[in-house]
Amino acid sequence: MTIKQRWQELMANQPLKRKLYEIIFGSDTPMGKMFDIVLMLCIALSILITIFDSIFVNPWIVGALVVMEYLLTLFFTFEYLARLYCSPRPRAYAFSFFGIIDLISILPMYLGWLLPGARFVIVLRSIRLIRVFRIFKLFSFLDEGYALLESLRQSFKKIFVFFLFVLIMVICLGTVMYMVEGGEPDTSFTDIPTSIYWAIVTMTTVGYGDITPVTPLGRFFAGLVMLLGYTIIAVPTGIVSSEMVKQSQRDVAKKYEKDRLNGEN
Amino acid sequence: MTIKQRWQELMANQPLKRKLYEIIFGSDTPMGKMFDIVLMLCIALSILITIFDSIFVNPWIVGALVVMEYLLTLFFTFEYLARLYCSPRPRAYAFSFFGIIDLISILPMYLGWLLPGARFVIVLRSIRLIRVFRIFKLFSFLDEGYALLESLRQSFKKIFVFFLFVLIMVICLGTVMYMVEGGEPDTSFTDIPTSIYWAIVTMTTVGYGDITPVTPLGRFFAGLVMLLGYTIIAVPTGIVSSEMVKQSQRDVAKKYEKDRLNGEN
Amino acid sequence: MTIKQRWQELMANQPLKRKLYEIIFGSDTPMGKMFDIVLMLCIALSILITIFDSIFVNPWIVGALVVMEYLLTLFFTFEYLARLYCSPRPRAYAFSFFGIIDLISILPMYLGWLLPGARFVIVLRSIRLIRVFRIFKLFSFLDEGYALLESLRQSFKKIFVFFLFVLIMVICLGTVMYMVEGGEPDTSFTDIPTSIYWAIVTMTTVGYGDITPVTPLGRFFAGLVMLLGYTIIAVPTGIVSSEMVKQSQRDVAKKYEKDRLNGEN
Amino acid sequence: MTIKQRWQELMANQPLKRKLYEIIFGSDTPMGKMFDIVLMLCIALSILITIFDSIFVNPWIVGALVVMEYLLTLFFTFEYLARLYCSPRPRAYAFSFFGIIDLISILPMYLGWLLPGARFVIVLRSIRLIRVFRIFKLFSFLDEGYALLESLRQSFKKIFVFFLFVLIMVICLGTVMYMVEGGEPDTSFTDIPTSIYWAIVTMTTVGYGDITPVTPLGRFFAGLVMLLGYTIIAVPTGIVSSEMVKQSQRDVAKKYEKDRLNGEN
Repeated sequence: MTIKQRWQELMANQPLKRKLYEIIFGSDTPMGKMFDIVLMLCIALSILITIFDSIFVNPWIVGALVVMEYLLTLFFTFEYLARLYCSPRPRAYAFSFFGIIDLISILPMYLGWLLPGARFVIVLRSIRLIRVFRIFKLFSFLDEGYALLESLRQSFKKIFVFFLFVLIMVICLGTVMYMVEGGEPDTSFTDIPTSIYWAIVTMTTVGYGDITPVTPLGRFFAGLVMLLGYTIIAVPTGIVSSEMVKQSQRDVAKKYEKDRLNGEN
Repeated sequence: MTIKQRWQELMANQPLKRKLYEIIFGSDTPMGKMFDIVLMLCIALSILITIFDSIFVNPWIVGALVVMEYLLTLFFTFEYLARLYCSPRPRAYAFSFFGIIDLISILPMYLGWLLPGARFVIVLRSIRLIRVFRIFKLFSFLDEGYALLESLRQSFKKIFVFFLFVLIMVICLGTVMYMVEGGEPDTSFTDIPTSIYWAIVTMTTVGYGDITPVTPLGRFFAGLVMLLGYTIIAVPTGIVSSEMVKQSQRDVAKKYEKDRLNGEN
Repeated sequence: MTIKQRWQELMANQPLKRKLYEIIFGSDTPMGKMFDIVLMLCIALSILITIFDSIFVNPWIVGALVVMEYLLTLFFTFEYLARLYCSPRPRAYAFSFFGIIDLISILPMYLGWLLPGARFVIVLRSIRLIRVFRIFKLFSFLDEGYALLESLRQSFKKIFVFFLFVLIMVICLGTVMYMVEGGEPDTSFTDIPTSIYWAIVTMTTVGYGDITPVTPLGRFFAGLVMLLGYTIIAVPTGIVSSEMVKQSQRDVAKKYEKDRLNGEN
Repeated sequence: MTIKQRWQELMANQPLKRKLYEIIFGSDTPMGKMFDIVLMLCIALSILITIFDSIFVNPWIVGALVVMEYLLTLFFTFEYLARLYCSPRPRAYAFSFFGIIDLISILPMYLGWLLPGARFVIVLRSIRLIRVFRIFKLFSFLDEGYALLESLRQSFKKIFVFFLFVLIMVICLGTVMYMVEGGEPDTSFTDIPTSIYWAIVTMTTVGYGDITPVTPLGRFFAGLVMLLGYTIIAVPTGIVSSEMVKQSQRDVAKKYEKDRLNGEN
């Protein structure tokens, strides 16, 4: 008996479970689509509440926000339990990527009584927003996302090698800069980790300016690091671009091959 | 009766309207071209006046600038009314993209009596400068612009997916950073929106430096965010590049096909 | 009589002029190559002198540098006059790109007696360093440079359209930001040109941090501008990349066509 | 007698040397793989020690770190001597890239008694981490690295020409900026090298903000420099991307040719 048959049998015997499954997991029926939209809005609202929670100090507003947050968490808890209940394979769901994210997004509120800082982990709920693509699937957005992921997956190895190279480089450059600038009075290059942090800030062209060289030699060296970073930014871009060009050519070749076969028959 | 026939009939009966239409909307006749150039210069002048208006405090200069601005607005008002008058379908013009921009660019001056800040909306006039391409159409600049827009339109879905991904990421990263750095005395990560703002500033490699991590853990984490931003900047570039390569190959294929057909005949 | 014949005739009659021409303009003979190398070193030395001149205050060092600079300028003056003398068409040389650069690079020293600031224009001499490629021509560096220029020339129109678009955008964004942040006490957005400057600094991801938004609305808006800048940086890169891919494919096609023709014969 | 035969003969006579060679230089046997992993961990530990050494001031911790560092250096010294001993051609190893790196990474500790700053050169040990790819060679990471290097090597000439161009440009732009902003009181453009440093910081979009223009003309000019830098960042990216596209097409063509030949036979 295959998994699909087992699922259909399970569902046939339990009309409530089946109905719930269609609403919660599906997005093809009107009810399923509406549930998804309501869920997305609740997640977005809950993220906004967490964000605003860190701004306001007025106890009345904070109180209102906390109450709303509790209500939403209650809703998400029921949703999680319902998902566990109606899933044909509850254990598989519980250990799936989204199952874990769903659990993580309700736990912090309960853990909040024990660890005060844990509450902000709620923002990880935003990962659940990825589900929004399910609603938009009519528009083939999901396909585009997969094509993107495929390109990145194909170029993963090259990017990994590039990263190791960058890591070794920033460690070396940071240490050299520490030797050049570290001895100055009032220097901002106080130790090697700080200098490595500077090398990352500079190589990635972020350039905060909280740590900057002041000696002529340090500035000359920093200029070299910048020009280096400016050039090697071309490498990941080149990797991803060439991978995407390759993939789009593969798609064209497939379509061409299919047309040719149709023409021959 | 088609729209074109209706238009020709309308025009035949009203020589003045036709003449005006050719001058204001067209750019093929010498008069039409000259009108476009004068209009562009007036728009540029008006933008310069608005910009300089915010610098000077000397009442005489400000007065002179305001007078010039009123004269230009008067000219633009007449131009707008003339466009409405001579357009074969005034309503369609009034609700078209350029029709709305034309209205928006004259309204602020009149609304300026009611809302003092509204006057600076005049700078939106710069959007009207897009019309400059009409004059340059001889040089096929417009084609290049359309090719560019076509490439962007084709890759819109992929870029939208990428954006949603970046948005979710900066919300998560900002919150994590708030938890890491938020408790420090004199921290610049005062609340979650500020931290999300920091995450955007860092991921996009802008790096103002008004909000910077100070703890070792914060700096380590910031370094990761930078390297992440450095890599994912490759994604939109890859999308647009591969789309442009695809489009240029499509153009070459079309030309090749045409040549082949000509050769066979 | 063609130009070449006239040149050969001229040269045949004047052995000194011909010798000088080979040394100064040519780089095929050992003497010509050596002259080019010496010239490059003199130019590099003269640039270094100008740079160091702005650092030192010790009158002895400054005096020594000025004397060296005068000697070098004297040498460049003789070189310029020799070029005028031995060129077969002195007028054409004098008005050519390099002829004008050669003149500009010696004039400032003499004008320095009249305009004190003019002396630093000497640094424009660095443009003369482009000639260094003549010496390296054995290594086909020049071809690569031309291939690069050709790609840029082909994509010039698209980049121009892109620039006009960016220009209009930074004017609009700068003005909007002035309206959002301009009213704050102690704001750094003091006027519209400053705000436009901020928009350029932000869109190009330079991000000095001398002008930064402080209000929540301003920061939200600035975040949008950054994400916009992050995406549209993909456009010029995409243009140049696709142009280069196209050109390299054209080269491959040419080579393939040539091989095919050789095979048929 | 070929080198390989000589090597096999040498090895056959000296079983200890052969065993050592397999462990130290090889990574195919279990012992060889384990040695490589232990070596990587020791290198990583030694880098971490050097980094932490610059942070702590507590004499007990510093003392413990120094002792650990000496032990590790002792281990690396033995490893270096063992490599020299068991290599079939010790001189070739000693002057190879990795041989020199291996020597450089143990020398600083001994030289540390003479030159206090030299100790931090130990961080150059991180270059030895490149060997980590040997362990991962099963996953074809090394191939990807070589493909990357090949692309960069192919585009080296174009990037070199681009660099010379950028260098000449930052010298010119820096000097012009010095002439524009240098005369201001409290300017940060104190001399030409500082201005060139500013031009590099701006062109590469790093943007520290330690040196910023304050005059309207200076800001206008800086805006131009930024837009220029924003555009020319497209050039190295375009070079590398097109080179990678070309290379991946060459690979596809090779595979296609091979398949065709197999089909014919």
